[in-house]
Amino acid sequence: MSRFLKESYQAMRAYVPGEQPRDMAYIKLNTNENPYPPAPAVAQALTAGEVEKLRLYSDPTCLGLREKLASLYAVETENVFVGNGSDDILNFLFMAYSREKGVAFADITYGFYSVYATLYGAEACVFPLKADFSLDYTEYCCLNKMVVIANPNAPTGLSLSLSQIEEIVKTNPEAVVVIDEAYIDFGGESALPLISKYENLVVVRTFSKSRSMAGARLGYAFAGKAIIADLEKLRYSTNPYNINRLTLLLGEKTVEENDYTLQTCEKIVATREKTVLRLTEIGFTVIPSKTNFLFAKYPGISGKQLYEALKAKGILVRHFAGERTKDYIRITVGTDSQMERFTEIIREITRGGNYA
Amino acid sequence: MSRFLKESYQAMRAYVPGEQPRDMAYIKLNTNENPYPPAPAVAQALTAGEVEKLRLYSDPTCLGLREKLASLYAVETENVFVGNGSDDILNFLFMAYSREKGVAFADITYGFYSVYATLYGAEACVFPLKADFSLDYTEYCCLNKMVVIANPNAPTGLSLSLSQIEEIVKTNPEAVVVIDEAYIDFGGESALPLISKYENLVVVRTFSKSRSMAGARLGYAFAGKAIIADLEKLRYSTNPYNINRLTLLLGEKTVEENDYTLQTCEKIVATREKTVLRLTEIGFTVIPSKTNFLFAKYPGISGKQLYEALKAKGILVRHFAGERTKDYIRITVGTDSQMERFTEIIREITRGGNYA
Repeated sequence: MSRFLKESYQAMRAYVPGEQPRDMAYIKLNTNENPYPPAPAVAQALTAGEVEKLRLYSDPTCLGLREKLASLYAVETENVFVGNGSDDILNFLFMAYSREKGVAFADITYGFYSVYATLYGAEACVFPLKADFSLDYTEYCCLNKMVVIANPNAPTGLSLSLSQIEEIVKTNPEAVVVIDEAYIDFGGESALPLISKYENLVVVRTFSKSRSMAGARLGYAFAGKAIIADLEKLRYSTNPYNINRLTLLLGEKTVEENDYTLQTCEKIVATREKTVLRLTEIGFTVIPSKTNFLFAKYPGISGKQLYEALKAKGILVRHFAGERTKDYIRITVGTDSQMERFTEIIREITRGGNYA
Repeated sequence: MSRFLKESYQAMRAYVPGEQPRDMAYIKLNTNENPYPPAPAVAQALTAGEVEKLRLYSDPTCLGLREKLASLYAVETENVFVGNGSDDILNFLFMAYSREKGVAFADITYGFYSVYATLYGAEACVFPLKADFSLDYTEYCCLNKMVVIANPNAPTGLSLSLSQIEEIVKTNPEAVVVIDEAYIDFGGESALPLISKYENLVVVRTFSKSRSMAGARLGYAFAGKAIIADLEKLRYSTNPYNINRLTLLLGEKTVEENDYTLQTCEKIVATREKTVLRLTEIGFTVIPSKTNFLFAKYPGISGKQLYEALKAKGILVRHFAGERTKDYIRITVGTDSQMERFTEIIREITRGGNYA
């Protein structure tokens, strides 16, 4: 850190992403990536002509992609915002709406929310999840604060119903409610139908999970036109060309091939349910998941021990050190064969070791 | 705009990028793009295997690219930061250093500096360029404010000497001095040799101009290790995966093929000098340029008239409406044949029209 850095940033703690090993030596079940490749049209779209056009700036309005998303999800183009990953969009949302009224989110949820709150000097109202990791939606009603809820939640995998979400949105008319639907395509009810009804709702999505494009960096959001205009203003005040040409192109191709995404999600959901059965047989407690990951614990072996034993055997999962999460590991759902290998190793670990 | 938007952002005016027409119907000399394609290795690098890996997140440390840049420019990896275009880096720099002491820049320079100052609530000290558009470097000495200088400057094309820059850096030891070298590969003296000597200096560069990668979104910066650590902290507090996999890969390939970049820049400089001669013959006043663009005016025809007459003939240039720039157009240097076509049209316009 330099002595020049703005004082309020000096003590700030940044987000810590999951490990991204530079080699390919692990079965990587730690950052909720999709085990299947992007839609076939993606590979075909990267022609020599497109590479040559890299000399030109991308379209800062991202119009082509916004039109295709609007058409697929039956909204207007003016209801769609796209960003450089959903983190980019969450950053703009906290920048725009968190400071003046403060912001409410859960104690166990996507770790970036608290980083953004600190960054923008917003008072954070953190509601602990219940003992079973479920979220009491009534705590978020009538707050008159910005509300941010991951639905389904990470790393728990649990979700709220559409009527619970609507109650939160309806009872906070003077503040913005953000529903982070990064994992919605694997289950859960989307809040998208509510955006035409409530001007204070934003639904945030990503191409990183269900569309197998984590490495392309592409997020999108739906909201009323006024909120989308706010987001565009901030984008044009920071980095208007924030999405590169190839990502915009590949994003369009992926939206066109939505059937592929639906099929991939179905496969992952089927693998998830098989894995839940196996882990339960072995003796794990598994939180019911509507996502592409599982949050699970085993009696007598800590999350850190599981993480380390798995890593030693070539499998990366994620462990969160907090008091309430330390017994658990978060396991991304891979292919059937990856999950067979995973449960095989898990059987060895739970049978063999001395973890007292 | 929504009624929820943070008050200080409501009156803010965002940056206005140059036109990016969605069709290819124009000779595009308006946003300083390179007329030549990216290095040949770029096309070869986009294999099916790389497309498949898009399902995985990119390396948030960007280590491979930072190592290659460090090696090419003979600095340590810890002296190199990479961002999602140089705008992304400038945004972080204003976020980190502009607020507490204020920030100084020229009245005629890259239009984004004033947008960032407003965004972060920094007091802007704007020094008018002299009548000939040259910058009086002594105004920036001993300010004890953040200083941001585009060198060479845009849209003028003029540059400062290394000793003038060193004087600014040396006499502001308590504040950060940013030298924006977006156009340095087309002429001018880089401040890079000074980063080992001054801990308050940042040199910002881009792959958009000399490396023909405007559409890939890639910028880089050199500074002492403490300033780089500040920038990383902000990146990890906003969007750690801000650069996509393909851009990182193509960036590495482009750095490996640096001879191609040098040759391309030489060609553009030769075309620039030929174009200056022709425009001068026609009767234009052309500001001496160390960049890939020319800033020029013609007696009796306003910049807006020139811009419109050129657009009607299929050529896009950029016009800045401000009082001191309104007589000028900024013309990106294209290929020899594009500039022949441009001067041909310019001859017609200056001969023919009634622009009184």
